[in-house]
Amino acid sequence: MKKAQVSVGQYLLDRLRHFGVEHIFGLPGDYVIRFDKLIEEHAIRFINTTREDTAGYMADAYARVKGLGAACITYGVGLPIVNPTAQAYVQSSPVVIISGSAGKEEFLQHNSLHHLINKSSTIYRDTTQLEIFKQITVDQAVLDDPSTAAAAIDRVIDRCLYEKKPVYIEIPRDIVDQPIAIHEYLPLKPPTSDAKALKEALHEVGGLLAQAERPLLWIGHEVQNRDLAGTVLEFAEKFHIPFVSTLLGKTTIRETHPLFAGVYQGQISHPEVHKFVSASDCILSLGVMMTDVDTGFFTTKADKSQQVVATSTKVQVRHHEFPLVTFNDFIHGMASLKPAKAYSHHPKSIKLKPLLPQPGKTLTSAFLFDCLQHYIQPEHFVVTDVGDCLFGATDLILEQNSFIASAYFASLGSGVPAAIGAQIAVPKRKVIAIVGDGAFQMSALELSTAVRYQLDLVVILLNNHGFGTERPLIEGNFNNILDWNYTAIPQVLGNGFGFKTNTEEGFAHALEQSLKRPKGFSLIEADLDKLDFSPGLTRFFKALKEKI
Amino acid sequence: MKKAQVSVGQYLLDRLRHFGVEHIFGLPGDYVIRFDKLIEEHAIRFINTTREDTAGYMADAYARVKGLGAACITYGVGLPIVNPTAQAYVQSSPVVIISGSAGKEEFLQHNSLHHLINKSSTIYRDTTQLEIFKQITVDQAVLDDPSTAAAAIDRVIDRCLYEKKPVYIEIPRDIVDQPIAIHEYLPLKPPTSDAKALKEALHEVGGLLAQAERPLLWIGHEVQNRDLAGTVLEFAEKFHIPFVSTLLGKTTIRETHPLFAGVYQGQISHPEVHKFVSASDCILSLGVMMTDVDTGFFTTKADKSQQVVATSTKVQVRHHEFPLVTFNDFIHGMASLKPAKAYSHHPKSIKLKPLLPQPGKTLTSAFLFDCLQHYIQPEHFVVTDVGDCLFGATDLILEQNSFIASAYFASLGSGVPAAIGAQIAVPKRKVIAIVGDGAFQMSALELSTAVRYQLDLVVILLNNHGFGTERPLIEGNFNNILDWNYTAIPQVLGNGFGFKTNTEEGFAHALEQSLKRPKGFSLIEADLDKLDFSPGLTRFFKALKEKI
Repeated sequence: MKKAQVSVGQYLLDRLRHFGVEHIFGLPGDYVIRFDKLIEEHAIRFINTTREDTAGYMADAYARVKGLGAACITYGVGLPIVNPTAQAYVQSSPVVIISGSAGKEEFLQHNSLHHLINKSSTIYRDTTQLEIFKQITVDQAVLDDPSTAAAAIDRVIDRCLYEKKPVYIEIPRDIVDQPIAIHEYLPLKPPTSDAKALKEALHEVGGLLAQAERPLLWIGHEVQNRDLAGTVLEFAEKFHIPFVSTLLGKTTIRETHPLFAGVYQGQISHPEVHKFVSASDCILSLGVMMTDVDTGFFTTKADKSQQVVATSTKVQVRHHEFPLVTFNDFIHGMASLKPAKAYSHHPKSIKLKPLLPQPGKTLTSAFLFDCLQHYIQPEHFVVTDVGDCLFGATDLILEQNSFIASAYFASLGSGVPAAIGAQIAVPKRKVIAIVGDGAFQMSALELSTAVRYQLDLVVILLNNHGFGTERPLIEGNFNNILDWNYTAIPQVLGNGFGFKTNTEEGFAHALEQSLKRPKGFSLIEADLDKLDFSPGLTRFFKALKEKI
Repeated sequence: MKKAQVSVGQYLLDRLRHFGVEHIFGLPGDYVIRFDKLIEEHAIRFINTTREDTAGYMADAYARVKGLGAACITYGVGLPIVNPTAQAYVQSSPVVIISGSAGKEEFLQHNSLHHLINKSSTIYRDTTQLEIFKQITVDQAVLDDPSTAAAAIDRVIDRCLYEKKPVYIEIPRDIVDQPIAIHEYLPLKPPTSDAKALKEALHEVGGLLAQAERPLLWIGHEVQNRDLAGTVLEFAEKFHIPFVSTLLGKTTIRETHPLFAGVYQGQISHPEVHKFVSASDCILSLGVMMTDVDTGFFTTKADKSQQVVATSTKVQVRHHEFPLVTFNDFIHGMASLKPAKAYSHHPKSIKLKPLLPQPGKTLTSAFLFDCLQHYIQPEHFVVTDVGDCLFGATDLILEQNSFIASAYFASLGSGVPAAIGAQIAVPKRKVIAIVGDGAFQMSALELSTAVRYQLDLVVILLNNHGFGTERPLIEGNFNNILDWNYTAIPQVLGNGFGFKTNTEEGFAHALEQSLKRPKGFSLIEADLDKLDFSPGLTRFFKALKEKI
C-alpha cells in the first residue's frame, strides 16, 4: 500500500477507474495539461475531442451506457461544457466534470490571469465558474487542499452515482501533483425503507393489481439508470403485465419482448399505443419523469385513482405518498409479490413490414425509418439528435440498452458527439447516428474524433433543408439553413464514405453498404422534402395543435 | 406617437436599434421563434448562425467595433453562449444576450418543460439560466411583466453601454407580443468628477510631465471602448509623447502614427519595444487592465512613483488614488493641459522589410507575418484566434480600429466567428482572419454563415499540426489533432477558395490571389512545422520560462 504517495490527481483518476470509467473526454489547456498528462500515464484513456461541448455530450452518452462518465476541460474557456452538463442534470446522467484551474499560489500573487472571469472571487481563487456549475450539478468540490481532497472526491463521486446527476470537480494546477492525505473511504449508505411502510405500500399495490383487469407498466429512464430493468422485467413476466416506455427511457427493456406495447407519450403516441394504454385500468409508472415530451404535453392519463407512481424521489399509490419507502426497495418488493390472478390482455405482436423500396420513388422520412427497422440488428445501437430524427426513431423496435437521445433537454447538435461517446462505451456494437441537417451543422466535424479513434459509425443525415420541426410553428427565413455538400465531409476528414440519395432504393442501398463496411464512418445524406415529416413528428404536431 | 401600442418585443428591438444595433446574431428555437419573427419584420437584420457560441462571438466582435452588439438564443440549450458572454464580460464588450423562455402561463400549469433546467425555480419560472448569467453579466432582466418591462430594458441596456460589459434579457414567449406600458426614458447620467479633485489630479499629472524627460503613454482597450482615442491622441500629439498599446487595446490608435512605439507586454514585448518602455521615466497608463497577458506575466514596470494609472474604475497618480475623479473627465482634462516642455525621444520609425519570398523555401510563421504585413492595406481588418496566430499578429502594424482578438480570455475557436461578426460590422472593409488548426477545428464550419451572407473574408490557417502553444509546456498525445484536408471545406460549403502551401512563394501567391478575389471567402492553409513559432510566440515562451 503506497496510498500516502498517491497525488491528488492520481487519487481522482483511481477512484474514477474504480467505478468503471475507462475513458475521459476533453481538450488540453494550460490549467489542465498537467492533469491531462496524468491521464495519459494512467490506465484511463484520454479521448481528445475537437471542442468542450462535444466532450460533454460524449461523457453524457458514455455515462448513460456505462453508469459513469467523465469530461475534463480547462478553466473559463471550457465553459461550452455547460450545455451538456445541464443536459446531464436534467436527464439524470452521472457525469463528472473536471476542470483545471489557475494555481492557488499564482492566483494569490496576481488574480488577473487569462481564462479567469473573477466576477465572484476570494483571495484564493476565482469562484465564478464554481458558481455557474452549482446551477447544473448536484455537488461540487474545489480540490485546493490535499488534506481534505480525498474525502471531497469520494463525496462528489458518491453523489454522482447515487443521484445519477453531474458533479463538478476543480483542481488548481499546483495541487495536481501534491500527495493526498491518507483517507479511509466509507461508501455512501443509501437510505433504506421503513419496513412497515414498505409492507403497507406493497400490500396496496397487490390490492390494485387484484382489482385490475388490464394493468400496465410505464417504464422510465430511472429504471435503467438505477439498474432496475431486470427486476422490473421479472415482475412484468411473473404477473404477465405488458409495458410501455417513455422516450427518454426507450430500450430500458428490450422492445422485442412480447409484453412490450410501445413508446407512450400521451397524444403523441402511435394510435395503437395510445389505444392500448387508454384501455388500461391500472398504470404502474416506474421511474418516469412527467415531462412535456414524455407525457405528450401532459395528455397522459391523469387520474391517479388506480395508479402507482414511483420515482427516485417519490413513491405514490393512488393519491398518497410513502415518504419512508425508497424507489429501489419498492421495485424489489414488487418483484417479490405473488400474482393473485391472470391477465389476458396482450399488446399486438409486432410484425416487421416487408421492405419494398420502389426504384426512383422519392425518399420520405417514413420510408427511411421503415427501412432502418428492416436492417437493424441486435448488435446495433441507435443514437439520435433532436428533431424529426428523434420523433421518427420513436417507433423503431430495438434491443435493450440500444438507444440514446437528448429526448427531454432536446439539445440540438448532441447527436454526433453522443454517438461517438456511445461507440467508445460499446466498442463491440455498431452505432447508428440519426441527425437532422440543422443539428449536423452544429457538430458535423466532431466526426474527426470518430476518425482519430477509428470508430466505424454510420451517420444518417435527414436533410430536410432547415429547421423542419419549427416550420409549422412559425415560418420565416430563420428556419432556413445553407445547404452544404455534406458528402464532402469525409474528404475533409480524410476518411469515411459519403452517400447522397433522394430515392427509396438509393437509401436502402446506401444503408446496406454502410452497415457492411468494416472500417471507417459512413455518412448517408437522405435528401428529403423540407415539409416531409415522419409519422412520429406528424403526431407531435397534431398533439401540439390540440394543445394550443 | 403610438408608443402604447408597441409590444414588449418591439420595444426591445427599437431600443437596440436606437443605440446602433443593425444585426442580431442567433438561432431559432420554439421559445424564441416569435421574437425571431419580430426581428425579421424589424429594421434590424437577423443573422442565422450555425451555433449559439458562434453567435455570441459574432455579437462580441460586432460590439467591439460598433459599440453595441446583440445575440438571441432559445432557453436552456442556448447555453453554449455562456462562453462568449464570459469573454465579453472579461474583455469589456457591450453585448446584450437575449433569451426566449417558456411562457409564464404554461410554466404555471406544468414546469417540466423541455429545455428547462429547474435546478432553481419559482412558481412563475425556471430561474436557473438567470442565475448562470448573473455570474457573467453586469445586469439582468426577466421581462415577465409588460408594466415594468420598458424600464427594465432601458436599465440593462444603459448599464451595458455604461459598463461596456454584457447584460442578459429573458423574454417568456407569451410576453413578446403583449403591449408594453408607456414609459419615459430617462437616460443614465454617468457620475461626474469633483472639480477640485480633478484639478488636483491634473496638476499632479502636469508636475510629473514637467519633471519627466521620457514620458510614455500606455494605452489599453478602455480608451477604445469609451471613445477616448481621439482625445488621447490629441494629448499625445500636443505633448509629443510616444505611445505603446496593450494587446487587447491594439489599434486603439493607428499604429502607423510616428509616435507609436509598439505593443507592450513586459518581457513578452519585442526587444525594441521593451527597451523603449524601460527607458521611460514616466508612464501614463490609460485604460489598461493589468492582466498576465498584457503585462507579460507581471513583468511590466511596477514602480508607480512616476506613473499615472487611469481606468474606468480608478484614477491613480503615483501611489494615491482619486476616487472622485472619473476616467472620462481625467482623459479630457489631460488633453486640455498645456505642455511645459518639449520632449525629444522618439520611437524608431518603422521600416517595412522588403518582401523576398524564396522559391521553394519552407514557409515559417515568421515569414508569414512579414508577408502579411507587406500586403495589408488600410482597409483591411485583422481578427485572430488564440495561439501563435495571436502572438504572431502582435507585431503587425495596423490602422486604427483594425484588430480584434480574444487577447485576454483567450478562447480558442473564437477567431472565425469573430471575423464574421466584424465583417458584418464593417461591410466596406475586408476582414483577414488568422486562426490556428486547433482553433479552426472548433468553428471552421461557421464559415457557412460567411457564405450565406456573402462575406468575402480571407482566412489564414496556421497549421502547425496540433496545439503548438502547449507543446513547450507539457508534451503529450493530447497536443496532437487529426490532420484535416482543410482546403476541402469550400467544397462542403459550396463556395470559397482553398489554397494549401508550405513555401514562402506559395503563401505570398495565395495571399495575393485571396486579397484580389472580389467574391467568396478564401482559405489559405499554411502548412508549418509543428515546432515552428512566430517571433512573438518565441518571446512568450521565453518570458514564461523566466517566470517558472
